[in-house]
Amino acid sequence: MEKFTQVSDISSVPAMVRKALELKANPHAHTVLGANKTVGLIFMNPSLRTRLSSQKAAMNLGMNAMVMNIDKEGWALELRDGAVMNGTTVEHIKDAAGAMGLYCDVIGIRCFPGLISREDDYREHVLSQFIKYCPVPVMSLESATRHPLQSFADMITIEEHKLHTTPRVVLTWAPHVKALPQAVSNSFAEWALASKYDVVITHPEGYELSEEFTHGATIDHNQERALDGADFVYVKNWSSYKDYGKILTQDDSWLLTNDKLKNTANAKIMHCLPVRRNVELSDEVLDSPNSLIMQQAENRIYAAQAVLKELLEGV
Amino acid sequence: MEKFTQVSDISSVPAMVRKALELKANPHAHTVLGANKTVGLIFMNPSLRTRLSSQKAAMNLGMNAMVMNIDKEGWALELRDGAVMNGTTVEHIKDAAGAMGLYCDVIGIRCFPGLISREDDYREHVLSQFIKYCPVPVMSLESATRHPLQSFADMITIEEHKLHTTPRVVLTWAPHVKALPQAVSNSFAEWALASKYDVVITHPEGYELSEEFTHGATIDHNQERALDGADFVYVKNWSSYKDYGKILTQDDSWLLTNDKLKNTANAKIMHCLPVRRNVELSDEVLDSPNSLIMQQAENRIYAAQAVLKELLEGV
Amino acid sequence: MEKFTQVSDISSVPAMVRKALELKANPHAHTVLGANKTVGLIFMNPSLRTRLSSQKAAMNLGMNAMVMNIDKEGWALELRDGAVMNGTTVEHIKDAAGAMGLYCDVIGIRCFPGLISREDDYREHVLSQFIKYCPVPVMSLESATRHPLQSFADMITIEEHKLHTTPRVVLTWAPHVKALPQAVSNSFAEWALASKYDVVITHPEGYELSEEFTHGATIDHNQERALDGADFVYVKNWSSYKDYGKILTQDDSWLLTNDKLKNTANAKIMHCLPVRRNVELSDEVLDSPNSLIMQQAENRIYAAQAVLKELLEGV
Repeated sequence: MEKFTQVSDISSVPAMVRKALELKANPHAHTVLGANKTVGLIFMNPSLRTRLSSQKAAMNLGMNAMVMNIDKEGWALELRDGAVMNGTTVEHIKDAAGAMGLYCDVIGIRCFPGLISREDDYREHVLSQFIKYCPVPVMSLESATRHPLQSFADMITIEEHKLHTTPRVVLTWAPHVKALPQAVSNSFAEWALASKYDVVITHPEGYELSEEFTHGATIDHNQERALDGADFVYVKNWSSYKDYGKILTQDDSWLLTNDKLKNTANAKIMHCLPVRRNVELSDEVLDSPNSLIMQQAENRIYAAQAVLKELLEGV
Repeated sequence: MEKFTQVSDISSVPAMVRKALELKANPHAHTVLGANKTVGLIFMNPSLRTRLSSQKAAMNLGMNAMVMNIDKEGWALELRDGAVMNGTTVEHIKDAAGAMGLYCDVIGIRCFPGLISREDDYREHVLSQFIKYCPVPVMSLESATRHPLQSFADMITIEEHKLHTTPRVVLTWAPHVKALPQAVSNSFAEWALASKYDVVITHPEGYELSEEFTHGATIDHNQERALDGADFVYVKNWSSYKDYGKILTQDDSWLLTNDKLKNTANAKIMHCLPVRRNVELSDEVLDSPNSLIMQQAENRIYAAQAVLKELLEGV
Repeated sequence: MEKFTQVSDISSVPAMVRKALELKANPHAHTVLGANKTVGLIFMNPSLRTRLSSQKAAMNLGMNAMVMNIDKEGWALELRDGAVMNGTTVEHIKDAAGAMGLYCDVIGIRCFPGLISREDDYREHVLSQFIKYCPVPVMSLESATRHPLQSFADMITIEEHKLHTTPRVVLTWAPHVKALPQAVSNSFAEWALASKYDVVITHPEGYELSEEFTHGATIDHNQERALDGADFVYVKNWSSYKDYGKILTQDDSWLLTNDKLKNTANAKIMHCLPVRRNVELSDEVLDSPNSLIMQQAENRIYAAQAVLKELLEGV
């Protein structure tokens, strides 16, 4: 594997999930591979789980990890080719990515969308420029349109808890007070579909995700119908893709409560965290025995570890 | 040991001090214990000595350390159970503490008091919520009302320098320009009393600490009388506990100078740092051969190391 | 070696360059030396290359690295001896440097100039106070007037690419939108002169560097004449030393373009980065095969590693 930014970068989701579960069973089995290797974890945005789980994954492999908050500890990067840099950007991404790659064997980068220009965000301008100029393999720590380490961890979690081969996996929109990226939802859809699950996506009208990610899924604006028979319910807010970056509604009838789960197949509940409790999901759902949120968070380690291992072996 | 937040978490101060001194004599003797173990050091507030000494302690044990400034690198945490999180808090401490514990074998957390509500601060709301939801042992890196790693280091330092079994240990209030927590003073009092030392506390009227911490100490509003015969003088500012969080006086007659030490038993001088020179203590005192401030700072390593070792062994 | 702050701290540039190239050929040969040793990397200012390359250098030696952004994660330091600290500074550099040294075997510190008082900056007040009070060897990660790790890396790079013993090395001023320190230029001049190279410095009138650094170099205000026959062209902006800290001109005729290089000896191009593209140098120059900017950035590792090794061996 030369980079890890989306599901198409790996040859098989089930095979990668198996590798991650092997690492989970034996996390320190590959410290020879990581010895004297370094991962740089570059954050342009805040992070908790990604920050800690990626470091933990690196350390499990015997790697060193260097964390840099480039926005706070460094400076603003220029993205435009050919720019006359007489403004506020201090360094071109070409030079920053080039240099950072000299100090690392793998680089992870987090770069959120601006949620202003759909075109800019969806061409993944920052991530793709970074990859273009970085001399070592790059893994996404969440980019403008995808969060592949999260989705990989989600697939590991479903694998551990599914009761039959093709579970019904429902992604349901939830209210939120802020305009959030579509990244987690896009990514979850493409990974669940690549896993050949029965994927249903439910949301209010106007919240349709890009078909690039949802092709093959059932789209239903009726949450109750969508949840019927669900084995897994993935709850997530996102802002509008069509009316880009906008909050169209905060309709709290979309808040997921236990009552709404009564017609599911005793569904397991998933969320990537951080979660706005009692806005997206009720406490009763999040704290129920069916909640997998901590299992998902734990599997972030083994998703990152499997990716780092593949990237090191691909070198 | 399952947690380390106050003196009552350890069975015996003298025994812990002995363990710390053994580690000081042989800091790298236990790297097998720490191998493949990780401590997460979570800061909600600034830190210099705690930040560096805790990392050093972990590395001495062969552990990995992950440092996170959650206020700057993460986001604001919700503390209220059952809250409808439609405001500015991004994640409930329940979920954040739960997830962070998945990536670590021990977690250290620093959470200062607000100095607004005495009730909130003294029930240690942040620390206790964190411990409640964190699946691994927690050590305080200073909480609203206590700084146990500092006090443990202070006890190690006194043990190294005391000339007889029951030294006279005087905690004296000092002026300051800011309203500071009572944490270091509370903690020092409870550790010195648990060590069976002859503890005297002196401060202007109105600066009485909570009796919870000072029971068994002599309280004297006359600094001169309090210092008479002192073997150790611990200098520290704190804001009022009674008139909570307030500065009642900045009376510079409480500044500790050499002249005030003339009736002590050639007292050793202690301060936890950072210190406002020539406001709390004069340069001449801080820089005298009797000053133990650097010894205290160094012993922070072995206090943290002894605690980490116990917490790992208690797992 | 007891400290590393300027070229005079090392006995011989060519010998140190050889040591660095040996480390580059065999980076992990000295992990026994670094085992259980810690470097503290203290930043008062932003950093990318220095931050990452110094960590990498430490890890190559088997050392642990602790990074602290003292301005953001700690507090403001007092520099004045005898100060009554009733203002905004929280800790005296005496106590902070003293304590940090207790937790580390070597400390690196970055402290930029204020560019307000030439006297304060050029006496290196922060760095020299830090060294005075720090109990372990200190290496500069760029100070008010010098950036010796950069210059050392530059000398390694020239050594790798020079075609004859005494290359003509031209340092040319370039325009910029901000007032920058003279540190990189000062340091490059003193290291290139110590290397016995034929050093030419060209800049608009008023941008003369302090003779302390340039003694032995040819100064020429005519950029075209200066570049004639150059083997290496080092491009850098700096603010005025004479009219201290001021931007006297942003004359874009000083922008370095390919056209200006036509009378050089097929000169190699150098810059310390970050670079303002198309303000200091044109894209065509920076991206040409003659550009050594990435080689310089990579050699930052081996410069730092050679320095750390010498400082550890000097302990």
